[in-house]
Amino acid sequence: MTDDTDSTEPQGGLPVVRLRPKANARAVRHGFPWVYADELVIDRRTKALAAGSLAVLQDAERGDLGVVTVNPASKIVARMLDPDAGARIDRDWLASRLRRSLALRERLFDGPFYRLVHAEADGLPGVIIDRFGDAAVIQPNAAWADRLLPELAAALTEVTGVTRIVMNGSGRARGLEGLDDRTEVIAGEIGAPIEVPMNGALYLADLTGGQKTGLFYDQRPNHAFTQRLSRGARVLDVFSHVGGFALAALAGGADQATCVDGSAAALALAEGGARAMGAGDRLTTRRGDAFATMEELAAEGQRFDVVICDPPAFAPSKPALEAGLRAYERVARLAAPLVAPGGYLVLCSCSHAADLTAFRSASARGIGRGGRRMQLIHTGFAGPDHPILPQLAETGYLKALFFRLDG
Amino acid sequence: MTDDTDSTEPQGGLPVVRLRPKANARAVRHGFPWVYADELVIDRRTKALAAGSLAVLQDAERGDLGVVTVNPASKIVARMLDPDAGARIDRDWLASRLRRSLALRERLFDGPFYRLVHAEADGLPGVIIDRFGDAAVIQPNAAWADRLLPELAAALTEVTGVTRIVMNGSGRARGLEGLDDRTEVIAGEIGAPIEVPMNGALYLADLTGGQKTGLFYDQRPNHAFTQRLSRGARVLDVFSHVGGFALAALAGGADQATCVDGSAAALALAEGGARAMGAGDRLTTRRGDAFATMEELAAEGQRFDVVICDPPAFAPSKPALEAGLRAYERVARLAAPLVAPGGYLVLCSCSHAADLTAFRSASARGIGRGGRRMQLIHTGFAGPDHPILPQLAETGYLKALFFRLDG
Repeated sequence: MTDDTDSTEPQGGLPVVRLRPKANARAVRHGFPWVYADELVIDRRTKALAAGSLAVLQDAERGDLGVVTVNPASKIVARMLDPDAGARIDRDWLASRLRRSLALRERLFDGPFYRLVHAEADGLPGVIIDRFGDAAVIQPNAAWADRLLPELAAALTEVTGVTRIVMNGSGRARGLEGLDDRTEVIAGEIGAPIEVPMNGALYLADLTGGQKTGLFYDQRPNHAFTQRLSRGARVLDVFSHVGGFALAALAGGADQATCVDGSAAALALAEGGARAMGAGDRLTTRRGDAFATMEELAAEGQRFDVVICDPPAFAPSKPALEAGLRAYERVARLAAPLVAPGGYLVLCSCSHAADLTAFRSASARGIGRGGRRMQLIHTGFAGPDHPILPQLAETGYLKALFFRLDG
Repeated sequence: MTDDTDSTEPQGGLPVVRLRPKANARAVRHGFPWVYADELVIDRRTKALAAGSLAVLQDAERGDLGVVTVNPASKIVARMLDPDAGARIDRDWLASRLRRSLALRERLFDGPFYRLVHAEADGLPGVIIDRFGDAAVIQPNAAWADRLLPELAAALTEVTGVTRIVMNGSGRARGLEGLDDRTEVIAGEIGAPIEVPMNGALYLADLTGGQKTGLFYDQRPNHAFTQRLSRGARVLDVFSHVGGFALAALAGGADQATCVDGSAAALALAEGGARAMGAGDRLTTRRGDAFATMEELAAEGQRFDVVICDPPAFAPSKPALEAGLRAYERVARLAAPLVAPGGYLVLCSCSHAADLTAFRSASARGIGRGGRRMQLIHTGFAGPDHPILPQLAETGYLKALFFRLDG
């Protein structure tokens, strides 16, 4: 077919890929960043493009829509990089994107500790960059960014002045892009865990050995809200990781906090953070399975003024939704009896597939089955260094529900 | 029918009302606070109960569910007051409810300025109480509370120490309950507007002449987030009322703020607040229709670093939803061109009928039609002194979307 064979003729050095007539070109023009496989003309040349190739996207009438990155093997076959079809995707272009991201974070935060780049919503599809003072962790979870990693690292140093960079190539997303699983320090040296100040607490982030990027910035506003409930309180942080909620509560004047987690390494970092804050004597850790530990604490008759449960994603995908919601309900049911009369229960979900309504229902049902009545006083999401595109609202994965239980 | 005629026999001095077999008694037992008309056995005696009568609610098997207030003329025929069917709904009972509400607010806020009672979620169906230091405004929007107003006022003084109380009986809800529209000072004296500190700003609340209770506390966390965007900024507050967002922005270091509102009285209070803060020279007001004023500002080529639009409820009910969403889209379309490159647009909705998804879509569409691309950096709701019951999630009426527009 003539239309197909000339669809990948080069333009400004880039091959051309073209939307099918039925595709929603208007959505792309209005900022929708993805093209699905069934919306693109997939001819021989397009199919032959290497994962992460750059191309010019055109609509069915050959009007330019912008520069995209193409991955013929992915369900999301093209991702928009720049609506200017003449854009050169090079170090300068990356630096200009990073400057735009930095301007938002510098307005929002006092210190250089934040997620600097949150993928599509920051105009860098598939790229995550977390900043820890003079160090940064890049997750190049899309093939184009993996190919341009040297330019991205150079632009990052130029724009932010960071001198130490970790490339973290672990995680599911890279597999879907055909990328390998490897983590390495690509600039400077990373020694001991880095001290990260947040909400008046100090956290230890292990940038090379920890989960994901060593520390989760996304819960920052939910940590802050928990602080407001914690003055003089006894606090239980279940699925604590490195103590995100517990250390924030201690910084907010909690009398005592207990971290529960399955990872000894994470608990050691929580203890280290508490010591660095001068609150080592107010933190207890308890290693073990979260569900079993909650049952043990209930059997011991323990009660806490504030209980937080921030489990891993129980419903990471649609097929896992039903089982995931049952797991969230179970967390709520086991946690509710641990909350003192008039105390607070904070339940979190980082599952894409469980939307706010479903998660809220499962949580309320669990609390009810745990024998308690409740008010919902606050609903929080990920912090503003995790922007989303309104067109991809599902990327708003993190939910935190703050319940007050009956007296 | 025998079952009907004995359904309202007194129990502990109270008449009995009974659920139909098909009604969801389990939901009531788990904290759902309402009984709809088609769920209750409506016999002659029930029909004869005066609006606001107290009664004992039983399930179809004559098991006690609690004390309810009954309004035979309302679609919500009964509202739960206490799951203890032996509870006496008197001044002591009201005081105990108020103490529970007060404990939450005292934990959350430094000063005595907050919504003290938010109806069902605070265990007092249909009752709103806002506190302004030593003064309070009661909205008894349900017949039972209107009848018990003297006891409620006495309990309020006992628990909080307030010496001045306004009964505000305006608004739609009272009409549905068959209550009259009147506002009066029922304790102490209210003279000049009261100075209310919030987020470092000072607001003037006119408790007897203003809209609703003179000041809206619900936007407090959204004012606070706006502050974080406002240092050194030029700010436009459209539908400003008494300057909620504008004065917060000035307190957060905005260079200059402009309030747009149709009410000269509201704008005068905004100016008074700015003067009280020592920021009178940084506030401008512009009286007029919000839509027309936004078009004028665009024609004048004016640009602002932060623009906030907090309109009245455009979709107060389901039949008004479609027109309401069009109005929200229009607000977004007119506001977007007024935002400087890389600036922020805050769009609010207090419409029950427009849920978060619908409002977000309308807003994003409007911004797109206004020629701009966007990130959504934050989604806020009403503050935690406006708790909700998870079973009545629709009472989470307030949404605030924080967009950053393209550079």
